[in-house]
Amino acid sequence: MTKKTPNDRSLTIENLNPRVIEVEYAVRGPIVIRAAEIEKQLKEGNHKYPFDRVIRANIGDCHASGNQVPVTYIRQLVAGCTYPPIMNSKDFPSDIKQKVERLLCSCGGKSLGAYTESQGIMTIREDIANYIQERDGYPANASDIYLCNGASDGIKTVLKLLMNNDAKTPSGIMIPVPQYPLYSATLSEYGAYQIEYYLDEDNNWALDIDELERALNESKDRCVPRGIVIINPGNPTGQVLSRENIKNIICFAKKHRLFILADEVYQENIHLSDSKFFSFKKVLMDLGPPYKNMEMASFHSASKGWHGECGSRGGYYELINIDYDVRMQVNKLISACLCSTAWGQSVMGAIINPPKPGEQSYELYNKERTEVVNQLKHKADLVSKLFNSIEGVKCNPVMGAMYAFPRIEIPEKAIEHAKSKQMAPDAFYCFQLLDKTGICVVPGSGFKQRPGTHHLRTTILPPVDQMKDMVEKFRAFHIEFLNEWK
Amino acid sequence: MTKKTPNDRSLTIENLNPRVIEVEYAVRGPIVIRAAEIEKQLKEGNHKYPFDRVIRANIGDCHASGNQVPVTYIRQLVAGCTYPPIMNSKDFPSDIKQKVERLLCSCGGKSLGAYTESQGIMTIREDIANYIQERDGYPANASDIYLCNGASDGIKTVLKLLMNNDAKTPSGIMIPVPQYPLYSATLSEYGAYQIEYYLDEDNNWALDIDELERALNESKDRCVPRGIVIINPGNPTGQVLSRENIKNIICFAKKHRLFILADEVYQENIHLSDSKFFSFKKVLMDLGPPYKNMEMASFHSASKGWHGECGSRGGYYELINIDYDVRMQVNKLISACLCSTAWGQSVMGAIINPPKPGEQSYELYNKERTEVVNQLKHKADLVSKLFNSIEGVKCNPVMGAMYAFPRIEIPEKAIEHAKSKQMAPDAFYCFQLLDKTGICVVPGSGFKQRPGTHHLRTTILPPVDQMKDMVEKFRAFHIEFLNEWK
Repeated sequence: MTKKTPNDRSLTIENLNPRVIEVEYAVRGPIVIRAAEIEKQLKEGNHKYPFDRVIRANIGDCHASGNQVPVTYIRQLVAGCTYPPIMNSKDFPSDIKQKVERLLCSCGGKSLGAYTESQGIMTIREDIANYIQERDGYPANASDIYLCNGASDGIKTVLKLLMNNDAKTPSGIMIPVPQYPLYSATLSEYGAYQIEYYLDEDNNWALDIDELERALNESKDRCVPRGIVIINPGNPTGQVLSRENIKNIICFAKKHRLFILADEVYQENIHLSDSKFFSFKKVLMDLGPPYKNMEMASFHSASKGWHGECGSRGGYYELINIDYDVRMQVNKLISACLCSTAWGQSVMGAIINPPKPGEQSYELYNKERTEVVNQLKHKADLVSKLFNSIEGVKCNPVMGAMYAFPRIEIPEKAIEHAKSKQMAPDAFYCFQLLDKTGICVVPGSGFKQRPGTHHLRTTILPPVDQMKDMVEKFRAFHIEFLNEWK
Repeated sequence: MTKKTPNDRSLTIENLNPRVIEVEYAVRGPIVIRAAEIEKQLKEGNHKYPFDRVIRANIGDCHASGNQVPVTYIRQLVAGCTYPPIMNSKDFPSDIKQKVERLLCSCGGKSLGAYTESQGIMTIREDIANYIQERDGYPANASDIYLCNGASDGIKTVLKLLMNNDAKTPSGIMIPVPQYPLYSATLSEYGAYQIEYYLDEDNNWALDIDELERALNESKDRCVPRGIVIINPGNPTGQVLSRENIKNIICFAKKHRLFILADEVYQENIHLSDSKFFSFKKVLMDLGPPYKNMEMASFHSASKGWHGECGSRGGYYELINIDYDVRMQVNKLISACLCSTAWGQSVMGAIINPPKPGEQSYELYNKERTEVVNQLKHKADLVSKLFNSIEGVKCNPVMGAMYAFPRIEIPEKAIEHAKSKQMAPDAFYCFQLLDKTGICVVPGSGFKQRPGTHHLRTTILPPVDQMKDMVEKFRAFHIEFLNEWK
């Protein structure tokens, strides 16, 4: 009688929300779980692996992946907000002290421990509006800014607005392929239809408008198209869209009355000297009427950039040209979870309002920035060159973001073998890579890709020496793999 | 042509997700928006209000509402994690330094800026498991603990597991009335059926099992009952459930195979000396088989307790007796947003692992704790007595949590007037109260209540003098209101 049977249970895999089961998120998927198991074995010393550490190139996590330490300016500011008495030290920079005092004056009881306004602390929203205005040359308003727990949280909120779960036909959202799997995961969870458009690998992952039209057209019987997601700079693909490309996307969205979700979390990660980031908002405004009145959301994050404060879960979105009644509904919706993390907000606030020349903390800040940015540029260049030097591997230049997404030739025999094991061929490949070299990367299938092609995503974050070592290990593995399955 | 018409828009109130429109959240609702407007007018000096400040008694926000400052121990720990060099000061307590070093060793790159494990930083989860074990006298396991962005985030995740949006009949969740409106808001958003059971106001808001049976029985044609929410100590109602009451609820849940969601965020806020908090887990375990194998989730938060670190968005839930396959799905689901805020996690970690006697930071910590806890006890006692001294107002004792929920007699004429304005009578009452006295409280209708009864929720957080003043203003207002509408 005390023995548990399925009938005793209130929650089983059979009656679990079926949409939860459909969610997939490869960046922390089975390969990463396997990597953690291997790490545990390595630590215990009881193993037969031909390596002594796992190289975690699966996730864009600057502090965890390499030799990058937190930016002093950001941490001093947040520590000052956390425990103001540390600012009594004569070594504490005066410019940061001023910023802390201004920020705390904008908090209930002058404490980060008070709930903030649901949209976020007002002074931070004002600073973000200034940042956007300086970036684009067009006005931005603090009342359009919404702080959130990492960009993921904001993206989920905005996608939610476009759903209609009580309608017979699901809402459709256009997403790039390859895409960042938060999008497919969220749309699965929401029961939405994913309108997949392919990025053009042969053209540095650019966005082809004919392809957008094809994808939209083919979806029309299956959904009500409501929005389009663009990730620029691209994740996992690392492209930076040209102004012209963005303009054409905006015209396409206008024509089909699609809400634009511009995922611009890598806006500060531009590596190639001839690449330039244009925000969707700027291009929209440049285009003038009627485009400049179009609605869109632009997302940014404290996790990316060159400072990489992922753990803070700082992020924001700007809602542009949103209908007043809709905005009131958004404000109500987000208020039910009260506010995003005040600490994450303060990190985001620090990032978009860095020290200016002449201020006490500027010199160190600039030194730290220059070092990290130069290293990232160097590694972005290095990694695509290294991959392209391997037979059967082809890698577009890493123009922006923090990933390379090389295409991998997998022999037919290996493909068949993987399929016989119900695995995607590149997942099989990546598992083998992990087991034989300790390199942990994410298979392209986790991001979706053109059928018949195979990729993997690696970050460019490990230190240069480790990265070179990683690619050499990869080269040896790849040659052996081709031989084994030829 | 450039003029905006509804047809130009991709997102309007007409095609906005209808479930978003259904969401209601009174704690930050229209009255609170009005309060902010009044505050703005007061600040500008251009007003005709017979008061010079708004008393914000609408939200349980310790740092913002009163004279309560952050706890030194918590802030030193978090500041140390944020910017470790501050620990070089000879004044920095050695016990906190040790805790910081242990915590950072559990973070990628020894930085709070790295993504944490999706469930949260391991050492914090271990500490939480210890805390639970000491509280209940039963084992707890770090792998059952899930850190989240405030308890709200965790509650939304667990409720999500019980949904089935593709079924014809919606999932049903039992919620208390009155309830904390996150529940009704989330269930509206998820399209679930709310099975409302009434708390027994005449019996100190206890939970009557016959009433649970009635509510469940009446819902059976409209939903598939899946779970039951219990808020203990109660919000907005302030009761603390007896062991016997909890036992009966568990037996009821067992009988009907309901998943238990135990909202225990006020577990440390017990004010009456003859009240004692029993966790649902402890009572479940005490009951032995088959009850001890029942599944449940228990929620806790950094926002509440006596330290009130709301802005941190720290929180956790313990999943008890969860099926392995279900747990794997939960782990996958939460990984798509990567992790909760590492800063919030560290605040939660500090709260459940306070300094022990003999440690350097203990003395100050204990002093700060004693002051706050005694004040809360005093105010809990004071506020119900004060309310009960007013004619037409009846208030149960505030046994726990941080709110009083007095019942207000509203004259028939005022009720009719409110209804003619499409307002809930107690919302009308609270708007009048705000306009005439500056007191901002939440109408009982925002929490749901028995039809024909009217309440308001006030926090017990303002300083004692302010609280006395508030109740006296309230008394005068109430008498005038009764006269005006008699």
